[in-house]
Amino acid sequence: MNALHDALFEPRRIALIGASADPTRLTARAQLYLRKHGFEGEIYPVHPRESQVLGERAYPTVTDIPGPVDFAYILLNTPHVEGVVNAIAAKGIPAACVLADGFAEAGPEGAALQARLLATARAANLRLLGPNSMGLINLNARIACSVNAALEAPSLHAGRLALVSQSGSMMGAIMSRGAPRGIGFSHIIGTGNEADLTAGEVAGLLVDDPNVDAILLFLEAIRAPEHYADLARRAHAAGKPVIAYKLGRSPYGAELATSHTGALAGSDAAAEAFFRAHGIARVTTLEGLLELPALLAGRKPMARAHRAVGVTTTTGGGGAMAVDCLGVLGIEARAPDPAAAALLDAAGIQHHGRLLDLTLAGAKPDRVAAAIGALQAAEDTDLVLSVIGSSAQFKPQDAVAGILRARDAGGAKPSAAFLVPQADASLALLAAEGIAAFRTPEGAADCIRAWCDWTAPRPESTAPAIAHDLPARPDEADARRLFAALGLASPFAVLAGPQDAAVTPYPVALKILSPDLAHKTEVGGVKLGIANAERLKQEAAAMHYCVARMAPEARLTGFLVQPMVKGLGEAILGFRRDPEVGPVVLLGTGGVTAELHRDVTLRLAPVDLAEAEAMIAEVKGLKPLAGWRGLPRGDLVALAQAVVAVSRLAARADIAEAEINPLIIGAEGTGVTVADAWVVRAAD
Amino acid sequence: MNALHDALFEPRRIALIGASADPTRLTARAQLYLRKHGFEGEIYPVHPRESQVLGERAYPTVTDIPGPVDFAYILLNTPHVEGVVNAIAAKGIPAACVLADGFAEAGPEGAALQARLLATARAANLRLLGPNSMGLINLNARIACSVNAALEAPSLHAGRLALVSQSGSMMGAIMSRGAPRGIGFSHIIGTGNEADLTAGEVAGLLVDDPNVDAILLFLEAIRAPEHYADLARRAHAAGKPVIAYKLGRSPYGAELATSHTGALAGSDAAAEAFFRAHGIARVTTLEGLLELPALLAGRKPMARAHRAVGVTTTTGGGGAMAVDCLGVLGIEARAPDPAAAALLDAAGIQHHGRLLDLTLAGAKPDRVAAAIGALQAAEDTDLVLSVIGSSAQFKPQDAVAGILRARDAGGAKPSAAFLVPQADASLALLAAEGIAAFRTPEGAADCIRAWCDWTAPRPESTAPAIAHDLPARPDEADARRLFAALGLASPFAVLAGPQDAAVTPYPVALKILSPDLAHKTEVGGVKLGIANAERLKQEAAAMHYCVARMAPEARLTGFLVQPMVKGLGEAILGFRRDPEVGPVVLLGTGGVTAELHRDVTLRLAPVDLAEAEAMIAEVKGLKPLAGWRGLPRGDLVALAQAVVAVSRLAARADIAEAEINPLIIGAEGTGVTVADAWVVRAAD
Repeated sequence: MNALHDALFEPRRIALIGASADPTRLTARAQLYLRKHGFEGEIYPVHPRESQVLGERAYPTVTDIPGPVDFAYILLNTPHVEGVVNAIAAKGIPAACVLADGFAEAGPEGAALQARLLATARAANLRLLGPNSMGLINLNARIACSVNAALEAPSLHAGRLALVSQSGSMMGAIMSRGAPRGIGFSHIIGTGNEADLTAGEVAGLLVDDPNVDAILLFLEAIRAPEHYADLARRAHAAGKPVIAYKLGRSPYGAELATSHTGALAGSDAAAEAFFRAHGIARVTTLEGLLELPALLAGRKPMARAHRAVGVTTTTGGGGAMAVDCLGVLGIEARAPDPAAAALLDAAGIQHHGRLLDLTLAGAKPDRVAAAIGALQAAEDTDLVLSVIGSSAQFKPQDAVAGILRARDAGGAKPSAAFLVPQADASLALLAAEGIAAFRTPEGAADCIRAWCDWTAPRPESTAPAIAHDLPARPDEADARRLFAALGLASPFAVLAGPQDAAVTPYPVALKILSPDLAHKTEVGGVKLGIANAERLKQEAAAMHYCVARMAPEARLTGFLVQPMVKGLGEAILGFRRDPEVGPVVLLGTGGVTAELHRDVTLRLAPVDLAEAEAMIAEVKGLKPLAGWRGLPRGDLVALAQAVVAVSRLAARADIAEAEINPLIIGAEGTGVTVADAWVVRAAD
Repeated sequence: MNALHDALFEPRRIALIGASADPTRLTARAQLYLRKHGFEGEIYPVHPRESQVLGERAYPTVTDIPGPVDFAYILLNTPHVEGVVNAIAAKGIPAACVLADGFAEAGPEGAALQARLLATARAANLRLLGPNSMGLINLNARIACSVNAALEAPSLHAGRLALVSQSGSMMGAIMSRGAPRGIGFSHIIGTGNEADLTAGEVAGLLVDDPNVDAILLFLEAIRAPEHYADLARRAHAAGKPVIAYKLGRSPYGAELATSHTGALAGSDAAAEAFFRAHGIARVTTLEGLLELPALLAGRKPMARAHRAVGVTTTTGGGGAMAVDCLGVLGIEARAPDPAAAALLDAAGIQHHGRLLDLTLAGAKPDRVAAAIGALQAAEDTDLVLSVIGSSAQFKPQDAVAGILRARDAGGAKPSAAFLVPQADASLALLAAEGIAAFRTPEGAADCIRAWCDWTAPRPESTAPAIAHDLPARPDEADARRLFAALGLASPFAVLAGPQDAAVTPYPVALKILSPDLAHKTEVGGVKLGIANAERLKQEAAAMHYCVARMAPEARLTGFLVQPMVKGLGEAILGFRRDPEVGPVVLLGTGGVTAELHRDVTLRLAPVDLAEAEAMIAEVKGLKPLAGWRGLPRGDLVALAQAVVAVSRLAARADIAEAEINPLIIGAEGTGVTVADAWVVRAAD
């Protein structure tokens, strides 16, 4: 681990394979930028013909370079990359970065090329960044080994944020947006297609770096989720927040993000659940990625957020705007509680309602500090936001003095600022002091929401996998036996043929059994409310005839009989493996209305009982079962246990998907009933 | 109208009543700022003792000022304002502005003071700005008659946007945010509490100003909606967009926005409907208020938006981010249609998918212009967005050259740009050329969504009010007669007492009639499914006994009998008067699930059939009735007609609220049935 860290972030001997001698070419940039930004180690341009490249001694091949090399940046065109990897590995270089695109993101041929590249590198113990990587920058070590145009800037301001970006161009864009605000970076790495090294693994290398206070991720897709889980746990232990901006919140964005890097798209809800489970804070505004670190750095997630803040202002309209934007995200600007009110009264600061307007009290630093300190003492809020008006523009020192004084007084909870006018100097002053400051009300709301949502990483599950044999091609009866093994047994019987006797009391439902029929109703394979044994025989015979005609290719394995059960409500309870983040459990209401309203919630699996209860509370259609409007209560305890049970399928790598739909929820104390079930095995 | 315009925006003789001789005081600012920013007319400070104030001849009272005065800014403390208004009016001054707060926003006493102030001004034919107004600025005429600290800026850059803000502090904040981007203002006015002049009326004065290209509104509450309607129609006719940022999207924000100015809060859905009906474009991001004008100015709303755009990019990650943010707001980045594809092919520009990546094609101006021009030729998009990467930061002229060239070539639809890095110079270049440019992906999406939502103002309704007498305290039968007069008759009979005979076929529903019982079920006043006349008599007697005991104070006016009707679905159809924007019609699905999902839509009333159909399409729970998943179709034609009918109550000022709940929707061709109804008269 440390060797890889040093090769990537502290190389003293860098080979630039395919470096151009023409300074206007993209492939000349890495060499130019390295020297321009102060790299004092050895650079070995590899060039087939030139003996000198941009003033440095060049070598015809990587093998010709004298002595060891720490890191190689491969600047060759796509077709030539594969050929050089073996030589790099043979030279004993531990890590290399590939600039060229045209690999997995470019279709099947590129994907095959990328697979061969990876296989070669793995066999030779060479770690790869990219392909399609803009390289990496370690500002403290003056290593600007990148072709990113942001390095055109005359000088780079080192800071304490590490940025790992799957998009190369966003490296420079984010850096450029931080610069005028005094928000600087320690490391900036482009991971591109991530054939080998993922953003999660690269970020993991930086957790223990003493120059890093927080890790930012710009993500298009999550590959190897276990790297992120490991990163998040280690970063949490080290007290360093991990903050992500991830594309894919809309279907169009998801399609692009993945086509752009050749990944499979998971659902955004699954990504969201993944970040929450691992304590990775997610922002949904671009500037939030720059603005959230100061809020989280040096802090631990709250045990339980109130989703409420105290707000002071020196501008009525600006303060109301911040309150409104927070409210849109479900964060309440709350009037001072008795503890805060007492402190305000003692300080002679008038207050009424949600917004503490300091315009009249006078925005003198000691008054502002007293007001912030008082609101920080409230027991029912998560943060104090100071909204600053024109003074932020014209008197930056005065505008921030009260906030600094409050910070020095050591408040119990974070204090942050939203500057309503254009106020670059005030933003920079606050950044220099490590105080979270927001440029827009939307950014403020996004970051404060992220702070409220931020939790510690969930502990790794230690529950063993359920031991239960599943046939290669399970039918509904097999699915029901699996769920029974998980603790979700519901009565049913299997009939080999129409002449078999049913064991359940009447009326019953009859269904065809087949591992090949996902939609039994559509082929006449379901009959409800059969009153007696005689009817059952008739129906079974008719059903067999009908299904055999409608789906002649389906293997029919018998009939399933189950009692007709009516509960107070119905749920869909499912398990699947998201292509990006892995196992998730999802819960929704059943029926047409639920489908219309997409009334479903989702968590990374497995979940514990508390999380299952939180899921139930999020499904609107289940609210009536919780006694809403005096309606009869359903057995939500049994439902929560069912969610936990199904989520344990996460440990069964042989299971790809499973679902109970509907799961019938009985009255309080009467349990839940599996009315239909299916399971799909993972491809071997 | 013109006289008022001139008094407010072209005054040559300004009285500053209560001007301070101490330049550090707030009340000295107007005089200082007027002179600092080049006002060359007469200033008459009114001061009880000083003969000179800040170098200008001062007068003890307004009456002592020699000659006419165009405009007075009253800088006195709250208690002294009332006393001076009569003298101002007597002096023949047509318009005055009041700085002091402590009026309607400060509670009942302040509200009474404001009412007296208004009455005095009205009686004397004096128009008032404020109270609680920061004054007004006309940059072209060098009139900075305001105490806003933004005027501390050494100079002000005049532009072509008029800003009318109910918040005084936002005047400066918005101006300051425009300045570094080269976005300047023609007029900036603070309307404060709006005792008399509203933002709508003030903005209306600027529609015909040749220095104004677009009108921006920063609103906390809408008062006198007719002013906005008039403004919007005239602005549309003049080809000038009206763009609003309005607080109140969250309940906390709504509470503050209105408590801040002493208004009553309407619902945000009603405000949204109001803006849409009048063709006022609404932004939900603060920067959108600055970024949208260039997109709308000089354009007409589209007849029908595709809600889709073409996107070019020179940064894969940045482009994908923009596409994702657009998608979150329901705008699709669409691949080139055949027309666009043919032009791209002809220009030799490779394309596949939603994002036209120009990185490989080379971002030379002619290539970029060709790409934009090709995408502008697509028949299924509303705009072309160019996403620009690092060149925007390092080579502003080059970065925008292609966009300018495309503009000069005269594309068929708007072209706009999102600059991914920090790129102030590029933003300013684009602003100078009048091309919409966005700083953040969220702002880009917000503005493009606003462009797609933008419509021409709805024509004023000419439908006459329904002539139908309504008793002072209507019961359900009266409500049903009103709806029948609107064309929504459903069978029912009224029984004076239990012994009356019912005229409807059985089974029937029986309900108590009373103008005093809003919730009949809760007092035993509803009985469904009565099978015959005998049972009806018994139930009526029992019901009377029960209701009389449960609600002894209610006046019982008889019984209502109606046939039991079962349809395919149920709707809530209501009419009410929003405290801010006035009459609205709302449609939702009935029942518990609808309430859980808040499945309701709303329009400014009255609506026409097309709008009613659009409303039906927005209610998710009505989707099954449109044939979704092969379900039987409901009579949505009759439902749309019912919506139109109910919306016509807008013309009946004597009706405050009315509702049909449920309105039972029969199968296609069988109509709708009023199952329950109520109406509330407006207070006289």
